[in-house]
Amino acid sequence: MSEKYEELKTFFYPKSIAIYGNSNIPFKFANMHLFNLLSGGYKGKIYLIHPRESKILGFDTYKSAVDVPEPIDLALIVAPTRVVPQLLEECGKKGIHHAICVTAGFSEIGNLEGREKLQEVATKHGIYILGPNCIGVIVPGSDLNCTPVPLPPPPGKVGIISHSGSWACHILFTIEENLRLGISKIVSVGNEANTDMVDFLEAFAEDPEISAIGLYLEGLRRPKEFIKVAKRTSQQKPIIAAPIGHGEAGMRAALSHTGTISTPTAVLNPALKQAGILVTDSPTEMLNFLQAVTMQPLPKGPRVGVVTVGGGPGTTIADLCEKHNLEVPLLSESLQDKLNSILPFTASVKNPIDITFDMTWDNFYVKVPKLLTRSGEVDSLIYYGIFSMEKWFNYFVESDNPILDPIKKQFNEDMIEATRVIMFDLFKTLLRIGRRAKIPILFTNLFLTRSDSLIEFVQSRGLPVFLPEVAPRIMSLMWQYAQYRQKLDS
Amino acid sequence: MSEKYEELKTFFYPKSIAIYGNSNIPFKFANMHLFNLLSGGYKGKIYLIHPRESKILGFDTYKSAVDVPEPIDLALIVAPTRVVPQLLEECGKKGIHHAICVTAGFSEIGNLEGREKLQEVATKHGIYILGPNCIGVIVPGSDLNCTPVPLPPPPGKVGIISHSGSWACHILFTIEENLRLGISKIVSVGNEANTDMVDFLEAFAEDPEISAIGLYLEGLRRPKEFIKVAKRTSQQKPIIAAPIGHGEAGMRAALSHTGTISTPTAVLNPALKQAGILVTDSPTEMLNFLQAVTMQPLPKGPRVGVVTVGGGPGTTIADLCEKHNLEVPLLSESLQDKLNSILPFTASVKNPIDITFDMTWDNFYVKVPKLLTRSGEVDSLIYYGIFSMEKWFNYFVESDNPILDPIKKQFNEDMIEATRVIMFDLFKTLLRIGRRAKIPILFTNLFLTRSDSLIEFVQSRGLPVFLPEVAPRIMSLMWQYAQYRQKLDS
Repeated sequence: MSEKYEELKTFFYPKSIAIYGNSNIPFKFANMHLFNLLSGGYKGKIYLIHPRESKILGFDTYKSAVDVPEPIDLALIVAPTRVVPQLLEECGKKGIHHAICVTAGFSEIGNLEGREKLQEVATKHGIYILGPNCIGVIVPGSDLNCTPVPLPPPPGKVGIISHSGSWACHILFTIEENLRLGISKIVSVGNEANTDMVDFLEAFAEDPEISAIGLYLEGLRRPKEFIKVAKRTSQQKPIIAAPIGHGEAGMRAALSHTGTISTPTAVLNPALKQAGILVTDSPTEMLNFLQAVTMQPLPKGPRVGVVTVGGGPGTTIADLCEKHNLEVPLLSESLQDKLNSILPFTASVKNPIDITFDMTWDNFYVKVPKLLTRSGEVDSLIYYGIFSMEKWFNYFVESDNPILDPIKKQFNEDMIEATRVIMFDLFKTLLRIGRRAKIPILFTNLFLTRSDSLIEFVQSRGLPVFLPEVAPRIMSLMWQYAQYRQKLDS
Repeated sequence: MSEKYEELKTFFYPKSIAIYGNSNIPFKFANMHLFNLLSGGYKGKIYLIHPRESKILGFDTYKSAVDVPEPIDLALIVAPTRVVPQLLEECGKKGIHHAICVTAGFSEIGNLEGREKLQEVATKHGIYILGPNCIGVIVPGSDLNCTPVPLPPPPGKVGIISHSGSWACHILFTIEENLRLGISKIVSVGNEANTDMVDFLEAFAEDPEISAIGLYLEGLRRPKEFIKVAKRTSQQKPIIAAPIGHGEAGMRAALSHTGTISTPTAVLNPALKQAGILVTDSPTEMLNFLQAVTMQPLPKGPRVGVVTVGGGPGTTIADLCEKHNLEVPLLSESLQDKLNSILPFTASVKNPIDITFDMTWDNFYVKVPKLLTRSGEVDSLIYYGIFSMEKWFNYFVESDNPILDPIKKQFNEDMIEATRVIMFDLFKTLLRIGRRAKIPILFTNLFLTRSDSLIEFVQSRGLPVFLPEVAPRIMSLMWQYAQYRQKLDS
């Protein structure tokens, strides 16, 4: 284990937390953190520190951390800007070596004096500060949601480091709603008083719980060290960065946001690429990539087999694959013959493979992928298909047209359940086929929310589902990273 | 009203429909059309025609359309390929002049003889054929969903013409789930035996119910006529096209899909642009644009005011605005002073305007947009904000940690309802402010589904909500079209 990981891991696995800044007015920032720690199931001890109140929201409080009779691992500071240095002083006295400073109002508004004071006290007592002007950390595996946003994501292998507090915690909404993104750790580094993105990248590189890393990247305080660490890390774990604030207005915004001067895109992006970092300008694309790369193996080549239940979507996906430097190869005559022998006469088998209106689902989920993955003619699969019948069924069942009554009887709960079981089984088989062949599969669909039980099921078992226009780009990023790794190996 | 509109409108407003191809096996294609007509609330008469069965799914059937004692407006043919010409012959005898031919197996598989026969019979009897190899039409305003997919969209001002049947009907899922896209008409033209995309574009141009047009575009059979009609149409109504099948594999796919040879992208796209057509390669982006342009006015210039509740998202949106040729202008000192006087000291007011953690929602929804729209310094607004409290509330209410019990009491139904009412009112005001100033507003958020009552509310009242990375691109398309119109006017 690296030194950095050991130095910083208390931020992620604290056994006890002291919080500064709670109040009896429920919707205060520090209370949001408190609520989320409690409802998220945090197993450690929580101490509320307040100079005047003796009870807050039912908790007994302490006037000072020094009064707490037991040791404290981590301080969470959400108190007013001017008192932060003296609170840190107190933490030092108590022997707390890790402090999350949520409080803003330092370098981002030009208060450099305040920032220096912070650093001074921290150095004196050997305190690692996360922030200031950050939102905290999330570690689903240890039920730690120390941010103002509820909805902790499922545990998984992704580490995210963010200069932006909003991007660090607002993404919980989109994960809850649309993505099955398994998270190991999210950390919001804010204005980086004495720990920064480089430190956490170094720690994540050595963290055995993390297999892919995402960065929301504003200004780089130590560009050289960053590139050095990134280069080393990307040889083992994919890193994808969404640089923010590197255009003209964006740089202005970043300056007033975290007080750093960002590097212009034209300089930054080539440097990132050289360090093996994938670059995207879309927050969602970053999350989509991380989902795919932690769920599926990397492709060994650029050749995509596109399998669909409709002509238009297959054509669109094929176009987009080519746009993103992938290939959609014409299949060999013999493979086409094999496909033709099982599919209806209306099907297309050249690639894209469009099974058209074929109710033999076994073809779509089992026979076709078996033929493709064993052929050696493709390196990955992108699927498109309407695959959950629940919405269709429910629509009929809820219709109040009496003419449909006799038909409705056929769509009872049992049938819906039976279809669900069959579909779940088919997907399990498809997943096994891909896994055995070590060929990545991305699924696409036009409805994505996890409220659909089938989508929840397949995503929870490692098959990502994206919009049709998203999958080709994500596969292209996976192939880009695979090439980087291949070059290193050769 | 144009001749074309008169010629073709029976496809959209038939008073009676004869269906060929139903069966007592529920999940047959023609039955899906039947079910959707019935459950969608179609008010006209439906006659099932079958050579042998005398009852299908409870309906009395007719051996031939000629036996139906009343006049029939439209035939829907989902019967086997080889019998289609003789069924058309029968339609001719009955005096039916409009036939939707869902049946496939003509030019897309090289059956040119079949196609010619189809055209011959149609010419002989003066029948307009939609298809073959199409999925039908949707007209929410007249409760006509004549496609295999349920979930008809809300009525509205958008017309969509698609070479791809899948894109024409699968989009119903994404509309139902994610988009409040008001539809006037969707038509799937398939292999275009004797009516084509040019005809329907001409009809839509004159259709008073349609104010914006989307095209899923495969091969163009009459490119010159298409460009001519498009040029005329785009002077009044925005047209956005998602060309499909114009790369190498895509062209191969398109050929086996609708039997047409598509024009390579390098030739097609400049021609489309010259005709004032906006081009996208993403199906979702096309729908997003149509939603925005039918809900909001066009911007009069490229200057965007970005308003957020977080630094990172504002920076990202600003970066993307510049990437897509929009401006995020530095606001004047006097406007900055005005903004500073109402916002907290942590806020940024240069543009992006980040209100940071300001619980005075009145600033975000009322005061800031009033100052911005009246300033003359911006031409449009892009908002980012977590604005529905329902998820937060529910998360607390559903927590089983007993320590939270006293706090939970404060989150009762009444409070949730009160907050909802307040938020709804704030949004109504924001909408009014934008509308009075004739300045387009796009909202962005990381959770989008209409299951959220607030998102459903604002979208149903004309405020589109997109992902943060989507809105800048959509605003850019709106500005692109606005410039095209400005050039024509000058």
